[in-house]
Amino acid sequence: MAQEIQTVAIVGCGVIGMGWAVLFMSQGLKVIISDPAEGAEESLKRYLEQARSFLEEHGSFDQLASNYEFVSDILPRLPEVDFVQENGPEKVDFKKALMERLDEHTRPGVVIASSSSGIPSSEFIQQCKRDPGRILIGHPFNPPHLIPLVEVVPHPQTSLEVVTATMKFYRSLGKRPILLHHEVPGFVSNRLQAAINNEAYSLISRGIVSARDLDLAVAQGPGLRWALTGPIATNALGGGGGPGGFKQRIERLGPAIRSWEDDILKNRFDWSVERLAALNDSVEEGLKDVDWKNLIEERDLVLLKLLSAKSKTKSMGL
Amino acid sequence: MAQEIQTVAIVGCGVIGMGWAVLFMSQGLKVIISDPAEGAEESLKRYLEQARSFLEEHGSFDQLASNYEFVSDILPRLPEVDFVQENGPEKVDFKKALMERLDEHTRPGVVIASSSSGIPSSEFIQQCKRDPGRILIGHPFNPPHLIPLVEVVPHPQTSLEVVTATMKFYRSLGKRPILLHHEVPGFVSNRLQAAINNEAYSLISRGIVSARDLDLAVAQGPGLRWALTGPIATNALGGGGGPGGFKQRIERLGPAIRSWEDDILKNRFDWSVERLAALNDSVEEGLKDVDWKNLIEERDLVLLKLLSAKSKTKSMGL
Repeated sequence: MAQEIQTVAIVGCGVIGMGWAVLFMSQGLKVIISDPAEGAEESLKRYLEQARSFLEEHGSFDQLASNYEFVSDILPRLPEVDFVQENGPEKVDFKKALMERLDEHTRPGVVIASSSSGIPSSEFIQQCKRDPGRILIGHPFNPPHLIPLVEVVPHPQTSLEVVTATMKFYRSLGKRPILLHHEVPGFVSNRLQAAINNEAYSLISRGIVSARDLDLAVAQGPGLRWALTGPIATNALGGGGGPGGFKQRIERLGPAIRSWEDDILKNRFDWSVERLAALNDSVEEGLKDVDWKNLIEERDLVLLKLLSAKSKTKSMGL
Repeated sequence: MAQEIQTVAIVGCGVIGMGWAVLFMSQGLKVIISDPAEGAEESLKRYLEQARSFLEEHGSFDQLASNYEFVSDILPRLPEVDFVQENGPEKVDFKKALMERLDEHTRPGVVIASSSSGIPSSEFIQQCKRDPGRILIGHPFNPPHLIPLVEVVPHPQTSLEVVTATMKFYRSLGKRPILLHHEVPGFVSNRLQAAINNEAYSLISRGIVSARDLDLAVAQGPGLRWALTGPIATNALGGGGGPGGFKQRIERLGPAIRSWEDDILKNRFDWSVERLAALNDSVEEGLKDVDWKNLIEERDLVLLKLLSAKSKTKSMGL
């Protein structure tokens, strides 16, 4: 653990693995990559090309973007890596077998972080014989080289040293890791996304609001605040700010919020065939005129401007 | 309805009323304002001063910011107004009595929009004898002159003409109104906020994550996306974009999301004294080092940059 991280293994190189690879390479790290899917290496090459301007912010594209090896079998190369970022399919049995092999071939103490988006690592470390205490979750958000958040979720036997080293390593890459003190399914951000999406699906499938207006209701309203101050500080500001702002807001609006919650629960999206069909119809109608290529390009452009504006403040990292 | 809106009444001039006043004045409209609270007129003057740079973007501050009258009794002035924005306390009985008087003194056909943040207007129009069909909700987000969203919520007897004219008027002010097709308590955005906040309060009060990390989990992660593309288009992009992206994501992640939702429901924040105390303690600890004055200034600065970056795109209004 004490030694510096210079070589990283990317195990599984789909959309998430490619984003991690770009991030690691942007920091001058050497990356050893494997993925059994056909065409995976070509996809990575295209992804690197798309991330050219991002990489050029950190140095020479030709130098940074060539600092990797794509290998057919990662296992014999594991002894030389200082950190493993695993991005395999979100299936417990698959991850169990994979973790057993990663644990067996990696030097003891080398951190193995899983990009699992909702399965806690205690569910897939049972077959690890060597050093399961260096395994934890490092869950990124797509695309991992642009979105700062990483959820770090240790299992009960993960060592404190590993947690600390992992947080430090991610911070050194410019990420904003958060620490979960206990494992929960879906971790934090996907639970928050599930909560808001469930009510969004309910409102749309009930015909209260169109899919397009639902997006505007967030992206032109509270979403603007969440991107800056998060839900809790936003609440505190709604209560007038200051140390007592949060409590004041809860006391003032609590009864109204509870009555809305009762109605939300009563009308909960039930994933029935009927409501899923109504939801899909409304979403397809609402998004039918979207120019997706243009949307992605403009989104990434505005995202970079937003991240840059936030990074120039003292408060926006809260 | 046919005539142009030139004079607007602001009934109730707290934080929301002041924001509306600034917005109306920025567009050169004349505003007649009343509020029974002591010092309300002085608060408005300070608020106008704080909004100086916003107003200067639209013309001469001295000209725009003096185009109002603060009156002790709004009723005798109502015959001359072309639009009413009501911002009284969020209490049904209060709004019932107020709406009766506004309806009685305003010319028939003149829209009366209530800033009610969660009570549908059908709950407070019973005593209106003259023209209840011109009453609806126009719910803004704080501060109303900066956040584009307005939720327009007609009651079942509101005329279609009134709905159309109200949407058109708000759009002419640069707002992004959305239309609710049926009344629901909390409307759309406050329901979505309640859904995410409830799970946030649960995770914090259970000790899973600190209040500070909860804010980072949104503001450095999915909140960045919600501010740009909203929940539904973000889902569709997560499914690869394109017309089938949303359906693909639901099919792929639906089972995992449903299992997270089950766990969310099982651990729902119950507003008990114990969990409220744990929540407040964690929030006070997490926010104890915040410099609130600096936070508000930087938030508004980044917000204006974000809105400006979005306004220069074709897609960000979706």
